[in-house]
Amino acid sequence: MTSPDHFTVGILLFEDAEELDWAGPFEVFGMAFKDFPNRHLVTIAESREPVTCYNGLRVLPDHDFSDAPPLDLILVPGGMGTRTQKDNRKLVDWLAQTAPRCTWVTSVCTGSLLLGAAGQIDQKKVTTHWGFIDSLRKAFPNTEVVSDARFVRDGQLVTSAGVSAGIDMSLWLLGEIWEVEYARTTQRMMEYDPAPPYADSQTG
Amino acid sequence: MTSPDHFTVGILLFEDAEELDWAGPFEVFGMAFKDFPNRHLVTIAESREPVTCYNGLRVLPDHDFSDAPPLDLILVPGGMGTRTQKDNRKLVDWLAQTAPRCTWVTSVCTGSLLLGAAGQIDQKKVTTHWGFIDSLRKAFPNTEVVSDARFVRDGQLVTSAGVSAGIDMSLWLLGEIWEVEYARTTQRMMEYDPAPPYADSQTG
Repeated sequence: MTSPDHFTVGILLFEDAEELDWAGPFEVFGMAFKDFPNRHLVTIAESREPVTCYNGLRVLPDHDFSDAPPLDLILVPGGMGTRTQKDNRKLVDWLAQTAPRCTWVTSVCTGSLLLGAAGQIDQKKVTTHWGFIDSLRKAFPNTEVVSDARFVRDGQLVTSAGVSAGIDMSLWLLGEIWEVEYARTTQRMMEYDPAPPYADSQTG
Repeated sequence: MTSPDHFTVGILLFEDAEELDWAGPFEVFGMAFKDFPNRHLVTIAESREPVTCYNGLRVLPDHDFSDAPPLDLILVPGGMGTRTQKDNRKLVDWLAQTAPRCTWVTSVCTGSLLLGAAGQIDQKKVTTHWGFIDSLRKAFPNTEVVSDARFVRDGQLVTSAGVSAGIDMSLWLLGEIWEVEYARTTQRMMEYDPAPPYADSQTG
């Protein structure tokens, strides 16, 4: 794979998206792209109105579905909002049309549910938030849902576990799409050398 | 220290703040407070206009300086914006007035520079982004600036290293202000069991 100079990452936003699901990847790509004028990071929502996320953060999306630029990578966050958005025909249709045109299709946490609703995970290997593994298996019996992974790659589809795992996935993507050293530099600049303070807290 | 039921966390926003500096702590407190109607998380900026952060994210603050509620904990993020905000008299004065009324005064990354400009780190032990340690030492010779720590506590002042370190600090605060188990539950829900993909990337 060549190392693309022109590249656009689009992050999908919707009501009740979980903040860190998208803000972690936003930081990774934003910091990495800073000195590269042809690498773009945009947020996209159904409308240009402020989007209120699950914990109350209000964000102004850069684009709506009608004026979003062509994307090389789409990132779909999770959160409680996925439970209603999976039945939002406008969003699901947009995702079903947009994902096949992207080189990389990615999700964080329960964003996998929206990729599923848009027909993007059939016969694929994916992961999701540990608390949603069983639900996703039931909803998509033709999908192999992996537990205990920070992220899973199946071809050009990359799905991560819950919330903070989107940071790990995004750093990995930098290394895969460009170079490992590019990912390392970004990781160093954002001091992602994490030390959870209560270390015996492991995920389910 | 008693375990407070009523509690308000205020996150300061300003132009060119680094996104994850505040979005990481926002996620930690937002997720932790979700089932507690008396625990509040608000964003505060000089005005109610949208704030454009360093990587382009546009956020609508909940309050401006004139209508911010009394805070129990203030969190000051860093980012390139701190270099201009340290000379913004309105912001620095607000911080100098507000911090002494809070039980906890905290910063992430170069947010320490703004706490310093507001007179909050004199004779204190603090930390900051690894790339800013020397600058902070020069700017505040009466402050002990610690390197190689994810976060440093000095009494009720808690300062973290760069960007992602604010997540570690915020989880620690949950355990310190309430209970360790409360922090562990939050950590588990946000799957903060990080695994940086290129593990030999250590910070400077």
